[in-house]
Amino acid sequence: MAILVVGSVAFDALETPSGRRDRCLGGAATHFALAASYFTPVRVIAVVGDDFGPDEEAVFARRSIDTRGIEHVPGKSFFWKGSYMNSLNEAQTLRTDLNVFQSFSPKIPPEYQDSEYLFLANIDPVLQEDVRRKMPRVKLVCGDTMNYWIKDHAENLSRVLKVLDVLLINDAEVKMIARETNLVRAAGKVLDMGPKALVVKHGEYGATAFFCERSFGEGCSVTVPFRAPALPLAEVVDPTGAGDSFAGGFFGYVASQPALTPAVFRRAMFYGSVMGSFAVERFGTERLAQLDPSEIEERFALFRQLSHLD
Amino acid sequence: MAILVVGSVAFDALETPSGRRDRCLGGAATHFALAASYFTPVRVIAVVGDDFGPDEEAVFARRSIDTRGIEHVPGKSFFWKGSYMNSLNEAQTLRTDLNVFQSFSPKIPPEYQDSEYLFLANIDPVLQEDVRRKMPRVKLVCGDTMNYWIKDHAENLSRVLKVLDVLLINDAEVKMIARETNLVRAAGKVLDMGPKALVVKHGEYGATAFFCERSFGEGCSVTVPFRAPALPLAEVVDPTGAGDSFAGGFFGYVASQPALTPAVFRRAMFYGSVMGSFAVERFGTERLAQLDPSEIEERFALFRQLSHLD
Repeated sequence: MAILVVGSVAFDALETPSGRRDRCLGGAATHFALAASYFTPVRVIAVVGDDFGPDEEAVFARRSIDTRGIEHVPGKSFFWKGSYMNSLNEAQTLRTDLNVFQSFSPKIPPEYQDSEYLFLANIDPVLQEDVRRKMPRVKLVCGDTMNYWIKDHAENLSRVLKVLDVLLINDAEVKMIARETNLVRAAGKVLDMGPKALVVKHGEYGATAFFCERSFGEGCSVTVPFRAPALPLAEVVDPTGAGDSFAGGFFGYVASQPALTPAVFRRAMFYGSVMGSFAVERFGTERLAQLDPSEIEERFALFRQLSHLD
Repeated sequence: MAILVVGSVAFDALETPSGRRDRCLGGAATHFALAASYFTPVRVIAVVGDDFGPDEEAVFARRSIDTRGIEHVPGKSFFWKGSYMNSLNEAQTLRTDLNVFQSFSPKIPPEYQDSEYLFLANIDPVLQEDVRRKMPRVKLVCGDTMNYWIKDHAENLSRVLKVLDVLLINDAEVKMIARETNLVRAAGKVLDMGPKALVVKHGEYGATAFFCERSFGEGCSVTVPFRAPALPLAEVVDPTGAGDSFAGGFFGYVASQPALTPAVFRRAMFYGSVMGSFAVERFGTERLAQLDPSEIEERFALFRQLSHLD
C-alpha cells in the first residue's frame, strides 16, 4: 500500500571524521522515501529549486518513487551544512538556508489521494496538520518533529499529536515535550497527548516503542514496551538521515503488511533499525539509494542474531 | 559451582531524586554477591571495620553467602557518599573515606581454594592480579575496573587484562582504555589486550557483549556481538551498584551452568540486566537482598517480551 510522505528534499554539505561532501542529496523526505521504497510504493510531496536536476530526479526514479508531488519553483533548494567533527551523536549546524522551503505550501496531487499511509516528516506542525486534514481517509499516520517546534510552536504541535497514530522522535525530544527527565514517565505523558504509539530513537543504542492503552474517557496506561537494538558499527561515515531512514524502514514495512499487529510492529522496529544501519555507512543517500533486497534480509537476520536468545 | 568475589564491602550515603539514605550497606562485592547468590554459591573476600556488625552480617547470611573471607580489622569500613541529584546516569562523589580498605590485602581462606569461578571487582589491579595468581585452577575469571585505574595505573591494569576471560566495564571505560571513540573499534582494541569477551554496560540502554576469535599468534577478530536490553523503568530510586548487580547476575548464571556456551552467554547477559533492573528499584541492597526467585524468572520473561520478535 502506498505511503505519502511530506517533508524536505534538500542539499546537504557535510563534514564527518570519515570525510566531507560539499553537496549531497538530502532532506528528511528523501531519506525516508528511499528507505521505505524497499518495502512499498512511496509518493513524495516537497518543494525544490532550479538546482534539483535530472541527477537528483534519477535517485528517486531508480527506486520507483513517485515524485509528481515534488513542486519545482524558481530559486534554490533547502540547503543545510552540518559537522559531526565533535561528535557523531549530534550534528553541529554550520548553516541553514531555507531558500524555496521557506514558503513551502504542500499541495496534494489528485493521484496521491488514495494513499493509505501518511508520513509527516519534520516540518512546521501547521503544515503537518493541514496535510493530515486533507487526507481524511488514510489508514495510519506517523510523524516526526524536532526541538525547534517543541520549544516555540508547542500549541501547533499539540494539535498534530492528537491526529497521529505513531510519533517517532528521539530521547531528548520526548523529554522536552513531556518536561520530564525519566523516559518511561515522559513517554506516558506524550502518549496522553494523542499518539497511540511512541517510537523513541536512541541513536547507537537502538529504539524503544511505547504503547498506550486507553479506556473510554480515561488517560493512557503504558503497556510493555519493545526495544530494537542498533547495529554496533566499526565506522559511522555520516549519521545524517539515520532517523528518517529508521522511520522509512519502520513505516515501509508496516505499509507492506495487511494489518498493524503487535508482531508486525516489532518487525517494523527491526526493519527501521536495519535501514538506519545502512544509511550511516556512506555519505548522504549513497548507501540507501542502491541496496539489494537480499542485503536487507541478511541484515535483518543479523539483528535477530544480535538480540535474540535462541 | 562456587564463585569467589574479591572487592569492596562498604557503607554508602546516598541522595537521589527519590530520597536520601545516610548509611546503606554497599560496595561492589556486596552488590555482586547478592545478585549472584540467586544462581550459585558465593564466597566473599573483603575487609571491613568495627562498624560492620550483626545487621550487615545478616544481609549476607540470609542469602547463604560465605563471609569467612571478610576480614575484620579495627577502624571504620570504606565509606562513600554520592549524589545523583544532577543525573541518574552519573554519580557525583561527595566524599570517599577509604578507611580500612586503604590497606586491603586480600587473603584467600583455605576453604575458598576450590572455587571454580573468580570475580575481580573494581579494586587496585595489583591486588586483582595477585588474587588471580593465587587461584591458578579457576575455570573462569571475570573482572571490572574504573577510570582511576585506567588513567593512572594503565600498566598494572594491562597485566590484569591478560588473565581475564571476561571484562565487564561501561562505554566510557572501554573507550578510555582503547583511546578510541568508536565502540566497536574500541572493543576490538580491548579484546586485543587479553580478554576473550568484553561486556560493555550502557546503563539504561542495556549492555553489549563483544567476542574475540584468535587464530594462533594473531590478533583478535571481533565476531557478531550480542546486545541485551535494559528495562525501561518509571522510577530509578538508586543506581548505585547496578553495574555490580549486572555482573552478579551475569556471572552467577554462568557459574550455575555446566559450560559457557554462546547460548549460556546470551542468557547470562539477560540475567545480568534482570538483576541490574531490580537493584535500582530501591536504595542500597534493599531490593536485591530479598527477591523471590519467581520474581527473577518473571522479569526474565519480561525481558524476552521486551526484545524478541516472536
